[in-house]
Amino acid sequence: MVLYNSAVSGNCYKVRLLLAHLGVEYETVDVSVSDRSGRKELLGELNPALRVPTLVLDDGRPLGESNAILWYFADGTQYLSDDAYERARTLQWMFFEQYSHEPYVAVVRFWLRYSGTPERFTDLVPEKTKGGYLALDALGRGLDDRMFLVGERYSIADISLYAYTHVAHEGGFDLEPYPAICAWLERVANQHGHVTIDA
Amino acid sequence: MVLYNSAVSGNCYKVRLLLAHLGVEYETVDVSVSDRSGRKELLGELNPALRVPTLVLDDGRPLGESNAILWYFADGTQYLSDDAYERARTLQWMFFEQYSHEPYVAVVRFWLRYSGTPERFTDLVPEKTKGGYLALDALGRGLDDRMFLVGERYSIADISLYAYTHVAHEGGFDLEPYPAICAWLERVANQHGHVTIDA
Repeated sequence: MVLYNSAVSGNCYKVRLLLAHLGVEYETVDVSVSDRSGRKELLGELNPALRVPTLVLDDGRPLGESNAILWYFADGTQYLSDDAYERARTLQWMFFEQYSHEPYVAVVRFWLRYSGTPERFTDLVPEKTKGGYLALDALGRGLDDRMFLVGERYSIADISLYAYTHVAHEGGFDLEPYPAICAWLERVANQHGHVTIDA
Repeated sequence: MVLYNSAVSGNCYKVRLLLAHLGVEYETVDVSVSDRSGRKELLGELNPALRVPTLVLDDGRPLGESNAILWYFADGTQYLSDDAYERARTLQWMFFEQYSHEPYVAVVRFWLRYSGTPERFTDLVPEKTKGGYLALDALGRGLDDRMFLVGERYSIADISLYAYTHVAHEGGFDLEPYPAICAWLERVANQHGHVTIDA
């Protein structure tokens, strides 16, 4: 199995984290997230969106979108509930992550820390930061009085939201006003088989 | 069952379209997408993201995110495959829709046609339009030589992508350079039990 991967991408880290929990072996091909030239040649046949992570299964079939990859491997394991409603809630959090969280929390982090040209984005940072805090507000509401996001059990919903939340400080986000999020980040990091983003 | 709904939102239309196919009855509560005041009072207890569609099931349990709602109702029906890989591909397209398609194709349409203040967005339209065409390029590649997005069968992947693609012209997008998309739009509209966005 081959994972087209970026070491700094939280989307790729989600996949690495779940596969570590599951003890699944794979190779990686490193893909730059700052220089996007050559993506069509590399990923054109594998993923219409030309993004990482893209995974190629042992039989050669490709799979894209981090949360779709999580679902594929988690289904039937302890990391995804069997209950229809809890499964839908898991997806609700993962769609929230891609629509309301990643485009703000991850993008500001990328601009400031990994783009190589943070000064190009100065004017855009305040609005994206505001969107990021709205997402953190929603995540905080979702974790209020809860151990994990769905069904009181660690799942791919937590893996999905953990990926960029635990490095949000690299984009200048202050998590101190969110004690429920901070406690949850620790719970996730203490799960058996956890690996860090730079492992 | 109650659907917190907007008549013009493609995200809400996805849910109405699937429920029409399935013959499921529900009530609607109309929520404005231009005036977002009062959302916290209306949706705060139901959906941390404060967005429509939000659905309240017969037993009172809430569900948010259009594509998560589609999954909940389609699972076990002809609108979602039983095959693990095809299910993951269905999710791949739905995450693509929320990350790479909706934020461009739907947003430009909203600004120009439904915001009430299109002039406020003039400077932002060109870049969002460019992103929309990149998404249409990817969708076109995905439909090349195919009848439907996954498994050669009409599914919730098609419903998800159809919702905003079929009204992309309201955002100024020209679909004529995408014959595979145009033919697919017609195939979707010809499905048994289809309802239009303004039905």
